[in-house]
Amino acid sequence: MPDRNKLTFIIGGARSGKSAHAEILATALPSPWTYIATAQAYDDEMRERIALHRSRRGEGWTTIDAPLDLAGALEALPDNQPVLIDCLTLWLTNHMLADHDVGAECRRLADVLSRPRGPWFVVSNEVGQGIVPDNALARRFRDDAGRLNQQVAAIADTVLLMVAGLPLKVK
Amino acid sequence: MPDRNKLTFIIGGARSGKSAHAEILATALPSPWTYIATAQAYDDEMRERIALHRSRRGEGWTTIDAPLDLAGALEALPDNQPVLIDCLTLWLTNHMLADHDVGAECRRLADVLSRPRGPWFVVSNEVGQGIVPDNALARRFRDDAGRLNQQVAAIADTVLLMVAGLPLKVK
Amino acid sequence: MPDRNKLTFIIGGARSGKSAHAEILATALPSPWTYIATAQAYDDEMRERIALHRSRRGEGWTTIDAPLDLAGALEALPDNQPVLIDCLTLWLTNHMLADHDVGAECRRLADVLSRPRGPWFVVSNEVGQGIVPDNALARRFRDDAGRLNQQVAAIADTVLLMVAGLPLKVK
Repeated sequence: MPDRNKLTFIIGGARSGKSAHAEILATALPSPWTYIATAQAYDDEMRERIALHRSRRGEGWTTIDAPLDLAGALEALPDNQPVLIDCLTLWLTNHMLADHDVGAECRRLADVLSRPRGPWFVVSNEVGQGIVPDNALARRFRDDAGRLNQQVAAIADTVLLMVAGLPLKVK
Repeated sequence: MPDRNKLTFIIGGARSGKSAHAEILATALPSPWTYIATAQAYDDEMRERIALHRSRRGEGWTTIDAPLDLAGALEALPDNQPVLIDCLTLWLTNHMLADHDVGAECRRLADVLSRPRGPWFVVSNEVGQGIVPDNALARRFRDDAGRLNQQVAAIADTVLLMVAGLPLKVK
Repeated sequence: MPDRNKLTFIIGGARSGKSAHAEILATALPSPWTYIATAQAYDDEMRERIALHRSRRGEGWTTIDAPLDLAGALEALPDNQPVLIDCLTLWLTNHMLADHDVGAECRRLADVLSRPRGPWFVVSNEVGQGIVPDNALARRFRDDAGRLNQQVAAIADTVLLMVAGLPLKVK
């Protein structure tokens, strides 16, 4: 069972089982469980994925939508309750599309995540292990996501790399 | 030496040494060795790669082509003989291009792989750690491949992530 | 502290903290420290990244530019001094763009790296864990980079996979 008041960071590629594993870890602790969703349903593909994740979670979960103000949502929560944040890369995408100061937003989030609260389970995507993308926006996103992942991993108590649904302990 | 009657799953990026490592594991067991090739030579690049893999294997190997009916090919084999299946992502591509029911095919394959036969060495690609692809077909492939990799990893006795030719034990 | 006369290979995705970690390992040894830069500033984006890396390193470092003749640069250095080579994938790109014999260049580099000198810290990118690239040049680069990474990992004493700024020991 994960420790209380701890930050667990779960990183992995697309469809590597990040969310499902985070749910297993969170529900190993007593409910109530809070799910903070950062996804915004821009299209049908995304709407479908959100509905799929939501139906899988089932009973005992409260869902909070925080596509932009993730730090504020975390601060408003009571302590000592498992919270699953899914996921950082979508949150980052939302800020980029809104043309916000990504560096400042990341620092604010890292500041909240570094406080001894939680237990928090933070999900994020590894997006930097392919070929350099053609377009500048994708390169910027890749850089910003990598930088954010490093920030969160540095303050996390546990870091897991998901490989084909299995966790590999990095920290 | 890998145990008999076991399923070993070898996952990794392009040119990470997956096939070569699987061959080392298979040939550590007594011959005869069976190589199940899922590749279809659509173009010269692929023809070249297939020829390269075949020449590297050398003596003692029987090659079976199973671009689509991989489950059937596995069922037809005698038990207790090392079999290398190379690779799942090409097999998945073949089914997608043929417009087959990918979910059903994956379940059928996972069903055969979960039987206590083998020793089987299954190779697959990690394709989800780059930027989200532009086109919908690539995204669907990435999702299906990730889901299939999770299915196989869940039933495998051993899971290895190849990194620059070296195996990292995940399970 | 890393051993003297050893080869440490640090591989990871974009913005995974490869260079920063290599600097930590190198500067754990006594100065003088040599930084061999393979980057060529084709555009402003690259010029910016080079300047950022250089300013982070600070005092105690000597920088040598070796966009092509990396083997020659290594041979010209005195032994028993920490050398950071950053990075192999840019060096490979330079040779590909110059239309050189990449296989021969890689063999020559691997030959120099396999000599008992150093301590050397070699940084490279994992680029093979995304979707197969559309264009043939990117596929060729991905193959060549993977092959080179395997060559260097095979002769390295230590191989680290960087995940969100954290090293995962592979060898």
